[in-house]
Amino acid sequence: MTYCAGILVQDGLVMIADTRTNAGLDDISTFRKLHVFSWPGERHFVLMTAGNLSITQSVVSCLNEGMPNPETGEIETLQNASSMFRAAQLVGRSIRHVRDIDGPALEEARVKFDVSMLFGGQIKGQPMRLFMVYDAGNFIECGIDSPFLQIGEHKYGKPILDRAVTFKTHLYDALKVGLISMDSTMRSNLGVGLPIDLVVIRRDADVIELSHRIEAGEPYFHDLRERWSAALRAAHMAIPRPPYAPAEG
Amino acid sequence: MTYCAGILVQDGLVMIADTRTNAGLDDISTFRKLHVFSWPGERHFVLMTAGNLSITQSVVSCLNEGMPNPETGEIETLQNASSMFRAAQLVGRSIRHVRDIDGPALEEARVKFDVSMLFGGQIKGQPMRLFMVYDAGNFIECGIDSPFLQIGEHKYGKPILDRAVTFKTHLYDALKVGLISMDSTMRSNLGVGLPIDLVVIRRDADVIELSHRIEAGEPYFHDLRERWSAALRAAHMAIPRPPYAPAEG
Repeated sequence: MTYCAGILVQDGLVMIADTRTNAGLDDISTFRKLHVFSWPGERHFVLMTAGNLSITQSVVSCLNEGMPNPETGEIETLQNASSMFRAAQLVGRSIRHVRDIDGPALEEARVKFDVSMLFGGQIKGQPMRLFMVYDAGNFIECGIDSPFLQIGEHKYGKPILDRAVTFKTHLYDALKVGLISMDSTMRSNLGVGLPIDLVVIRRDADVIELSHRIEAGEPYFHDLRERWSAALRAAHMAIPRPPYAPAEG
Repeated sequence: MTYCAGILVQDGLVMIADTRTNAGLDDISTFRKLHVFSWPGERHFVLMTAGNLSITQSVVSCLNEGMPNPETGEIETLQNASSMFRAAQLVGRSIRHVRDIDGPALEEARVKFDVSMLFGGQIKGQPMRLFMVYDAGNFIECGIDSPFLQIGEHKYGKPILDRAVTFKTHLYDALKVGLISMDSTMRSNLGVGLPIDLVVIRRDADVIELSHRIEAGEPYFHDLRERWSAALRAAHMAIPRPPYAPAEG
């Protein structure tokens, strides 16, 4: 499994991904699912991937090599895409390209062409944007009302994002809540696990502000998990028992 | 959608179910998914159902009418089943019976035979047990290590159960945590909604201790939702921001 969350707030973008992959419960590995494409002073993109690893890695390779623009025939890359929208289209086109090549054989082997991606970033002078790209290469954009998108095993970690993140949330509070969301997911699904890759990009900044990997045993994340557990325990213990109980309840 | 949770602790059994059904987003109704079968002083069962309503209602009708025992040919009912295990088999056999009758036509109409059930209770002098019955009529039993089972839209409400419920949890704390789990689910999936039906059966009791419906606007549940929201907000605000932030973060 995989869990990735992208949060787009007033001050910037937070991207968080786990690194666990599994081909069956007895075949678990660590693979990077968060990919950074950065040209300091010009443009930064982060791509996070969920689904079949052979497909997602091929898509990343296509993006690195560039894809011909269907109108002009020229090779389009993330470096020369004229807007975030065009860059997201390029991601979608790369997915379709891999499907054209590998799809029929995968179908024959009854392997589902199953992939989804979060793609966010900013081109200098243009708005910062965050997209979720589906396996058909189409995509939706993150809005202000629900300023986050998730892929992979998204349900366990959604309630805290629903409650705690708004567009006005401080950039590093968004990171913190994203890590709580990751923690909830890791506790309920062993297929999601450490290390965790994270990137923070401040809006209109020339460079990527933070690119970090949380390894097992890191003190801050360990402390966050402990505090969150303790706080939840205190929270539900502080709520009175239901009054439906009979007198001796 | 549906969300049902059954919690089996030292002191007894808690069963909680929502009542919302939808055939598309524009066709939402309230149907009872929690069914009580009780013979005071003798035996009590609770059945909660998720999936296609025509199937689950037919299964309940089969249980009410009884099913022939495949070995003896005699009509077996929940009232005369000799053990909880035999009663759970009867639920499974009722599902298979409905599949035999309706399955081919449903398949032709491309409607998935999709159903799951939680079945719990106690026969006097025997252990209290809780089962999850699948659409093939097979079932698993709730154990002491993870003393709860869920059906339907189960992921949003699982983290709090994972953290807060053990076999030693007080019966009405189990009910309270079950309601928090229901609240988390209702917030993240509009297909799960009020009213909520709940039943509490104390171990070895002659009568069902509590059978209650929570309607919209009920003060206790409203207060629980408010308190839980406030506590979660306080909890994540009390956790320090990640130290990965640069000095000005």
